[in-house]
Amino acid sequence: MRRQAIVDTSARIFARGGYHATGITELCVANDLGKGALYHYIGSKEELLAAIHDRVMDEVMLGADRVAQAGGAPTLQLAKLGDELLDVIHRYPDHVWVFLHEFPALTGERAEQFRKRRRQYERRVEAVLQAGVDSGEFRDLEPRLTAMAWLGMHNYTYLWLKTGGRLSARDVAKPFADIFMRGIASPITGGHE
Amino acid sequence: MRRQAIVDTSARIFARGGYHATGITELCVANDLGKGALYHYIGSKEELLAAIHDRVMDEVMLGADRVAQAGGAPTLQLAKLGDELLDVIHRYPDHVWVFLHEFPALTGERAEQFRKRRRQYERRVEAVLQAGVDSGEFRDLEPRLTAMAWLGMHNYTYLWLKTGGRLSARDVAKPFADIFMRGIASPITGGHE
Repeated sequence: MRRQAIVDTSARIFARGGYHATGITELCVANDLGKGALYHYIGSKEELLAAIHDRVMDEVMLGADRVAQAGGAPTLQLAKLGDELLDVIHRYPDHVWVFLHEFPALTGERAEQFRKRRRQYERRVEAVLQAGVDSGEFRDLEPRLTAMAWLGMHNYTYLWLKTGGRLSARDVAKPFADIFMRGIASPITGGHE
Repeated sequence: MRRQAIVDTSARIFARGGYHATGITELCVANDLGKGALYHYIGSKEELLAAIHDRVMDEVMLGADRVAQAGGAPTLQLAKLGDELLDVIHRYPDHVWVFLHEFPALTGERAEQFRKRRRQYERRVEAVLQAGVDSGEFRDLEPRLTAMAWLGMHNYTYLWLKTGGRLSARDVAKPFADIFMRGIASPITGGHE
């Protein structure tokens, strides 16, 4: 779809030059479109930014849905959430860069929508952690702070995990899951392994 | 010192509006200085950006030096590195925001210097991890990837750990260290605790 191609191209432009510093003219050149045509597809520069954020959140939530539908033990679900998240970061480095750096530029309803979706995903992680505490797989932990630790460990890979790089998403997801699962495993049941 | 005050004020301005989008005029207003005076203190806009990066790296390396000088078991050293790092993030939210978002704007020698110092710090973390593997405190892990996991978990707090917020740096450092130390502890010695 033309609109999706514009969103993807513009993500690359914003990732390189920054959202605020990138003008409509630059976006027109990159997308090989006149101003009228560009606005027809994207509505406004901020709408384009919101579409880049949505692209990331759509993929991330699809992954979370797959994990929830497959079910299974919390340890397994958390490992799968990690696989899915790193896969998105690995496949969309520009979108994720823009997502993590430019979200303060979203205003009003768009900012609200972004916060809501981001919070929704965080709640999925927290829910898996809580389920593991309830089942005794995980030790008694604070789900919110633990989710932030997990998210940080995974999200921060956007700085060095690159498409076509030496490491695949899976190369990173596996040792990260090892650290995290052992880190939160219940000492009674042994949890992981 | 006047220059340091300019660096701190400008970090706040860049954090809000972005480096590229912030003009010299805006920096003059924020610092209550004319253009000539501002340039006298900072040299150039990019030099100012480099000074913000240095401010963060100076503090982070000072913390790492304190940890190295105190010595002790790798588990203890890694916990202390976490305390020091979160303390810097907590005290300098604007500087760290600029540090993590605007480093691609540094060019030439300044970009090289930044990469070198950043790498220097990463090596400190890797060295503590390797020391723990050698001593048998930590399980056999890949120091580089494990350091990136540790850095991600800690650095990413810049998005939500705020000066004057509900949580202190210590409130976060303690549970994070718990997760990480258990996560990398040797199963033979038991490692942490």
